[in-house]
Amino acid sequence: MNFTAKRIAEFTNGEIVGNPDEIVHDISRIEEGKKGTLAFLANPKYEKYLYDTKASIILVNRELVINGSIKSTLIRVENAYNAFTSLLELYAGSLHEKTGIEQPSFIDPTAKIGNNVYIGAFAYIGPKAVIGNNVKIYPQSYVGEGTEIRDHTILYSGVKIYHDCIIGSHCIFHSGSVIGGDGFGFVQQDDMQQRKIPQLGNVIIEDHVEAGSNVTIDRATIGSTIIRKGVKLDNLIQIGHNVEVGENTVIVAQAGIAGSTKVGENCMIGGQAGLAGHLKIGDSVKIGAQSGVTNSIKANETVLGSPAMNASKQVKAMVIYKSLPEMYQRITDLEKEIALLRKEKE
Amino acid sequence: MNFTAKRIAEFTNGEIVGNPDEIVHDISRIEEGKKGTLAFLANPKYEKYLYDTKASIILVNRELVINGSIKSTLIRVENAYNAFTSLLELYAGSLHEKTGIEQPSFIDPTAKIGNNVYIGAFAYIGPKAVIGNNVKIYPQSYVGEGTEIRDHTILYSGVKIYHDCIIGSHCIFHSGSVIGGDGFGFVQQDDMQQRKIPQLGNVIIEDHVEAGSNVTIDRATIGSTIIRKGVKLDNLIQIGHNVEVGENTVIVAQAGIAGSTKVGENCMIGGQAGLAGHLKIGDSVKIGAQSGVTNSIKANETVLGSPAMNASKQVKAMVIYKSLPEMYQRITDLEKEIALLRKEKE
Amino acid sequence: MNFTAKRIAEFTNGEIVGNPDEIVHDISRIEEGKKGTLAFLANPKYEKYLYDTKASIILVNRELVINGSIKSTLIRVENAYNAFTSLLELYAGSLHEKTGIEQPSFIDPTAKIGNNVYIGAFAYIGPKAVIGNNVKIYPQSYVGEGTEIRDHTILYSGVKIYHDCIIGSHCIFHSGSVIGGDGFGFVQQDDMQQRKIPQLGNVIIEDHVEAGSNVTIDRATIGSTIIRKGVKLDNLIQIGHNVEVGENTVIVAQAGIAGSTKVGENCMIGGQAGLAGHLKIGDSVKIGAQSGVTNSIKANETVLGSPAMNASKQVKAMVIYKSLPEMYQRITDLEKEIALLRKEKE
Repeated sequence: MNFTAKRIAEFTNGEIVGNPDEIVHDISRIEEGKKGTLAFLANPKYEKYLYDTKASIILVNRELVINGSIKSTLIRVENAYNAFTSLLELYAGSLHEKTGIEQPSFIDPTAKIGNNVYIGAFAYIGPKAVIGNNVKIYPQSYVGEGTEIRDHTILYSGVKIYHDCIIGSHCIFHSGSVIGGDGFGFVQQDDMQQRKIPQLGNVIIEDHVEAGSNVTIDRATIGSTIIRKGVKLDNLIQIGHNVEVGENTVIVAQAGIAGSTKVGENCMIGGQAGLAGHLKIGDSVKIGAQSGVTNSIKANETVLGSPAMNASKQVKAMVIYKSLPEMYQRITDLEKEIALLRKEKE
Repeated sequence: MNFTAKRIAEFTNGEIVGNPDEIVHDISRIEEGKKGTLAFLANPKYEKYLYDTKASIILVNRELVINGSIKSTLIRVENAYNAFTSLLELYAGSLHEKTGIEQPSFIDPTAKIGNNVYIGAFAYIGPKAVIGNNVKIYPQSYVGEGTEIRDHTILYSGVKIYHDCIIGSHCIFHSGSVIGGDGFGFVQQDDMQQRKIPQLGNVIIEDHVEAGSNVTIDRATIGSTIIRKGVKLDNLIQIGHNVEVGENTVIVAQAGIAGSTKVGENCMIGGQAGLAGHLKIGDSVKIGAQSGVTNSIKANETVLGSPAMNASKQVKAMVIYKSLPEMYQRITDLEKEIALLRKEKE
Repeated sequence: MNFTAKRIAEFTNGEIVGNPDEIVHDISRIEEGKKGTLAFLANPKYEKYLYDTKASIILVNRELVINGSIKSTLIRVENAYNAFTSLLELYAGSLHEKTGIEQPSFIDPTAKIGNNVYIGAFAYIGPKAVIGNNVKIYPQSYVGEGTEIRDHTILYSGVKIYHDCIIGSHCIFHSGSVIGGDGFGFVQQDDMQQRKIPQLGNVIIEDHVEAGSNVTIDRATIGSTIIRKGVKLDNLIQIGHNVEVGENTVIVAQAGIAGSTKVGENCMIGGQAGLAGHLKIGDSVKIGAQSGVTNSIKANETVLGSPAMNASKQVKAMVIYKSLPEMYQRITDLEKEIALLRKEKE
């Protein structure tokens, strides 16, 4: 990373206050700023750091009122946070410039490989797999027979995608994620043994999906497990067979969704939450961390707790739960008082 | 997949009603049936779809009474669901016909390799490992020194099995599962540092066990962590050191069992449940999803909640938990009323 | 393993009672002792096994009083448990004697490799990576560009460490652990799409850290996610971006810590516990299994439950929670009794 204030101002459509030749080669938080770093100030509660920071360049909002002397070069922009993110994207993009096919790797002769791809050493591309243009498959990843990976998608090191799955474009899968393993389907026989139900469906992942490290998404028994456009999955998440997750839904680490549940669009599922199977979760539902969802939920609702219930009801119950010992005592006191009243009366 | 009605009828011992030359090349749910697909009807509540579906062939129960006209070819069998599953197994079996040793792979010269195996590219078979007949080891899997994998077992891509473990026959391990990592054993020293207890035991997995993706099963400190015959583990499950899981027990995703706990036969452990260490769980116990088990459980019991308690007691407590705010109000009302009675009396 | 009583006594500074030439080639628990095995007796409640065990050699505390006849050779030491652990360490150390670079492996020409390392087949060492002396990198592991792995650290098979991370000396990472994947950072746009915030920080892991199988530790957005000296992580743990975990803290399996939370020294976090983001957890805090921590915690406190509260308060509330149905009935009875009193009065 090597940006001058001048280049940053051009890129962010900003106005320089200070030295246009100031150079930054790294980024920092404003409160930890060092010479040679770029920081930003968006949240007013961090303004106090503006006058002390050693960051060389700071992106600030155009309307910011300055209340002291500043050593850094400022760049005033419409929205400091967005401008900073755009710069990071520009920089991050330059980090992923890997292309070419490293050796040794295994590419089945019947696989189709697009243009400008990166295929790392020890990656395995199975028969009839289709790899789009500008795809990056890092070392030790696995693409099973007949699976398609569309343009601009990245599989980091050690991602495993089973056969016959479809992965959209502009997706990112972090290391250790497993897509298309068998759904967990068994039928108990009379002798108590569990007979495996063959899992013959697949997984379809639409465009712009990101999955964290060590996520597992099972293939459908029949049909498809579907992750819609723009879904973001954190680490260590479990998605069962035949689940469908709606567009732009965000799921936090270690949450799990059991088989055949359909989650709507724009939902937000907290960390370590669990959803039972065969439920229907409406659009824009919010599910708190560690919730246990056992019933379907209507659109726009917020639920909490295990078992999950309406969040405001849950919060009320939680507050009173804390005072259970006191309640218990009050009941005992009431019983004594009533017994006394009764005794006095007789 | 390419089956005629005639072949399906022969295989399922069924009776054709319709065209014996009808061909299917895929499967579908009856409610989503398309031309060229095979479906089944077992649950009477789906009967309504029988008269509309476009599925070419449908497996139905022999005693089914038809109440309308049907375009599909029917095959009447003893048990439509079982027949369908058997067909899927036949088909699924044909998908795993991989054999041979792909290059480059690493097989230590002291390892013993059985007949008719598949060893994928970038798989690693360590010194003195023993691989049985008909075993399939997919690309990028690892078999440590002295570990034995018995006949017909499948390790999908990226399974890691440490040294000196024993894996039974007819087992399936999905991608990213790790068998035989060190148990979590440390002793705190006077200076607060944690000293590692060497983990010198192993893992023994009996026949017909299936483990999902990214499961972790730790080796014993001394002796063996044991997974008995027919156990089925979903994804992302944690099994601690020296645990024993009894025959045919089923454990759902993201559950965890801490060190030295013994789980009986035919148990059912729900998703995200956690079991403390050193417990004894009897046979045929059912543990609800997200339960936190802190005490041993007798055979045949069902528990729920965190901390877990008898399920019917837990359900009663949960119901009342929801009305805590109302209970609180009732106590307050009672106190007022009693104070009033007392005041009126004096 | 092949130790005589004489050698064990020398190593543990112990006193032999019995045959100095007795040989052991394996270890066992005292209650399962077999000929040729070494056991120990530290906990007095196991003394009863001392007189029956078939273990050939038993380490016992120097002050132990013998109350019967014993067939085994005893070695009296200061602390039988510590002596046993030291012996296991001696033995375990001898198991990890792998060195050398197996082929095929991938070592970028710009990487620096120390002396006496083991690099297994199919391991990948990226550009400018730095591998210290005596490091062991097992097959199929991945070390990204610019990452440094210091002396004596072990990466078991299939560990993935992204670019620009720093891993201390004497660390152990078990299979499937992923260090340095992107933090989970997105900003929702007006059209509901989630825009990725580039994750440009890294992960710093200090010396003597151990991480179990399939752990995930995300890189910081800016700056570093930091795991301090001596931290021990069990399997399947999630550590979010910009988290800091203090020295010698122990975290049990399947726990998760959300972004930017700082955990103090010598803490103990139970299995499946979840910590929200941006919290400050003091030193020597204990967090019970399955707890849900939503607020910062002062040093030395013990919390429990979801939402987590002071452990002794939580235990009291839990006890009463179990009797909620009875409490409910008592309130109903009180209401009846008061109504009766009121009626009698009027």
